[in-house]
Amino acid sequence: MKKIILTGDRPTGRLHVGHYVGSLQERVKLQNSGDYDEIYIMIADAQALTDNAEHPEKVRQNIMNVALDYLACGIDPAKSNIFIQSMVPELTELTFYYMNLVTVSRVQRNPTVKAEIQQRNFEASIPVGFFCYPISQAADITAFRATTVPVGEDQLPMLEQCKEIVHKFNSVYGETLTEPDIILPSNKACLRLPGIDGKAKMSKSLGNCIYLSDEAEDIKKKVMSMFTDPNHLRVEDPGQVEGNPVFIYLDAFCKQEYVDEFLPDYANLEELKEHYKRGGLGDVKVKKFLNNVMQAELAPIRERRKSWEKRLPDVYDILKEGSKVAEAKAAETLRDVKNSMKINYFEDPDFLK
Amino acid sequence: MKKIILTGDRPTGRLHVGHYVGSLQERVKLQNSGDYDEIYIMIADAQALTDNAEHPEKVRQNIMNVALDYLACGIDPAKSNIFIQSMVPELTELTFYYMNLVTVSRVQRNPTVKAEIQQRNFEASIPVGFFCYPISQAADITAFRATTVPVGEDQLPMLEQCKEIVHKFNSVYGETLTEPDIILPSNKACLRLPGIDGKAKMSKSLGNCIYLSDEAEDIKKKVMSMFTDPNHLRVEDPGQVEGNPVFIYLDAFCKQEYVDEFLPDYANLEELKEHYKRGGLGDVKVKKFLNNVMQAELAPIRERRKSWEKRLPDVYDILKEGSKVAEAKAAETLRDVKNSMKINYFEDPDFLK
Repeated sequence: MKKIILTGDRPTGRLHVGHYVGSLQERVKLQNSGDYDEIYIMIADAQALTDNAEHPEKVRQNIMNVALDYLACGIDPAKSNIFIQSMVPELTELTFYYMNLVTVSRVQRNPTVKAEIQQRNFEASIPVGFFCYPISQAADITAFRATTVPVGEDQLPMLEQCKEIVHKFNSVYGETLTEPDIILPSNKACLRLPGIDGKAKMSKSLGNCIYLSDEAEDIKKKVMSMFTDPNHLRVEDPGQVEGNPVFIYLDAFCKQEYVDEFLPDYANLEELKEHYKRGGLGDVKVKKFLNNVMQAELAPIRERRKSWEKRLPDVYDILKEGSKVAEAKAAETLRDVKNSMKINYFEDPDFLK
Repeated sequence: MKKIILTGDRPTGRLHVGHYVGSLQERVKLQNSGDYDEIYIMIADAQALTDNAEHPEKVRQNIMNVALDYLACGIDPAKSNIFIQSMVPELTELTFYYMNLVTVSRVQRNPTVKAEIQQRNFEASIPVGFFCYPISQAADITAFRATTVPVGEDQLPMLEQCKEIVHKFNSVYGETLTEPDIILPSNKACLRLPGIDGKAKMSKSLGNCIYLSDEAEDIKKKVMSMFTDPNHLRVEDPGQVEGNPVFIYLDAFCKQEYVDEFLPDYANLEELKEHYKRGGLGDVKVKKFLNNVMQAELAPIRERRKSWEKRLPDVYDILKEGSKVAEAKAAETLRDVKNSMKINYFEDPDFLK
C-alpha cells in the first residue's frame, strides 16, 4: 500500500513559530525522508470559512501568506502538492455523504469541537458548517487515501472521528476507504508552544506570536519582552525552568551547536538550566541567548520567504498545479465512493436491470 | 425576471394518490399553463440517503419508479427537466457554504425537522445529514434560481429557512441569490390526503396507500376496505362526512361529470353528502361510487405508466439529459456564488494584488 500524507492549515493569518515546531518542521522532515509516495498539503480555506463566513477577505488574503510560509520552511513543490481546499469540490461531495454516517450527538461529544466552540464563544450560535468540520476533515483525509496525518495531540479526537467514518462507510457499502494513522511531533516540547506572554495559545488577537516572517528587530523585541518565572526577581534568586516560556522555547529550538557558538562557557542546555535553577543567572542573559538561537533558526526561513515574495506568479502556479493534482486524486476516490454506494447510475450498466 | 419552478420527491417508494392530489396534479397544471420559463423536477436521491444511508439499494431502485410515476401523471420532458439530485454535485458545494450561514440552534427550532425527527424515532441519533436537510433544500432551490416552489403547507418552515439563507448570503456577500415563493395546492382537500385506514399519513410501512401504479383490482379492494364514520353502523343511521376518508377522497377526486355518469340520481356531490348526513345512505354505495371515480382518474395514468415501462432506455435518456441541463444551470449559479464569496482564485485576475 502507498504511504500518503495529508496535512494542512487554515489560512487565517501568517504562520508563527508555534506552527513551525508543532508541525511544519516535522512535515519538511517527512517530506525529505523519501518514505512517502504522495504528500498533500492543504490550505484549508473552506474550513476557515466555517467560522469566518462574514470575513472571506481575511481568508482569501492569507492563502498567499500560508503558501509563502510553507515554501519558506522548505516545503518543496516537487515533492509535496500544496493545494487550496475550495479548489477541490469533490471534498464537499464526500462531506455530504459522510454526514449521513455520523449522528448529531456524536459530533457534540467530540472534545475538540467542544473546546473550540468554547474558545470562540459560540455557545448556542455555532454555525452548522463549523459544527460539522470533523466530518469535513474526514473527507479531506480520506479523499487522498492518506495513511499518515502529522498533527498535534489536540487533533487526536478528529482522527478518531475520521476512523469511525471509515469503518462505518466500509461496513455499510463495502471496503472502500483507507484508514489513516496519526504522527505526533517527535519533540515533546513541540506539542504546544506557549505565546511570548506565557499564555497557552499563540493567537494573532493576543499579539503574542513570533511569526516566521518577522524581521530580526521584531524577533529581538519579542524575545526580550518574554515572560519568564515571575518569582525570579533578582539575578541571585533561584529560578524555575518548568513552565517558563523562555526555557520552553529553548527546549524547542536550541541545538548543541548554538550553545557552542553563543554560550561557550556552558557545556550544554542542561548546564544552563541548572545554573538558572540554583540562582545567579539573570533573565536578560538567557533571553539574549534565546534571541541568538531564534535569529539563527528564523533568518534562513525569512530569506527564503523574501525570495519567493518576488516570484508571486510562480507561487500562484504552484497552487494551481497542486490543486489540479489534488482534484484528480480526490475525483478518483469519489468515483470509488459512488461506485460502492451504487449512486453512479449513468456509469452503471446494471442500472436499468 | 424569469419564472422558474423547482420541486421534487424522495425516491423511497412508488408514488401514491396522496402525492398526486398534493402536488403532481398541480405540477402538471403549472407545467401546461405556459407561465413558467424553466421547470426542474428533482428525484431527491441524495436527500433520501440522509435517512436511508444503510439502504442505498432502496433509494436506487425507486428512482425509476418515481420517474415512471412522473411521466405517467403527465410530466412532459419537453417542458420539465426531470433530473437526479446526486448527478448535480454543485448542490453539495452550495450546501457546504450555506452551512456556514445557519446556526445549529436555528435548525433545531425548525418545526418540520422537529416533527420528522419524532416521526422517524431518531431522538439523539439523528444523522447529521438528515439534520442539515433544510440547508440542502435551500441549495436545491437556489441552485436553479427558483422563483416558485409548489409544495405542501407542511413545507412552509423549509421555505422560510431557504429565504433566511438567501437574505443572509446576499447581505454578507452582495446580491447573488434569488428569493423563492411557495405555491400551495389550490384544492384545500388536497393539502393532505389520509391513508385508507384513516391515519393522517399514507406510508408504505402502514400499507395504507393507493399507488398510482396499482392495478384496477387492487384499487377496488383498497377502496372497499376504507375506513368511514365508525358510528355509521346501519344504513339508516346519520353519518359524518367531515374526517371521513371516503368523503375526503371524494372531495379530492370527484368531478361533476363523475356524478352525472355514475350517480345520476344525485345532482352533485353536495346532495350525496346531505343524504349521508341525514341517514339512509350505506357506506357500500358511497364506496362503489368512489371506486368508479378512482378507476376513472387512475386508469389513464396506469396506462401511460405501462407504455413508459416498455421504454425504459428512453426514460434513462430523459433522466440523463435532464440531469445534464440541471447541472449546467447549477454550475452557473455556483460560479456566481463563488464570485460573490471571492473564492474563485484561479479565475480572478485580482488574486495576486
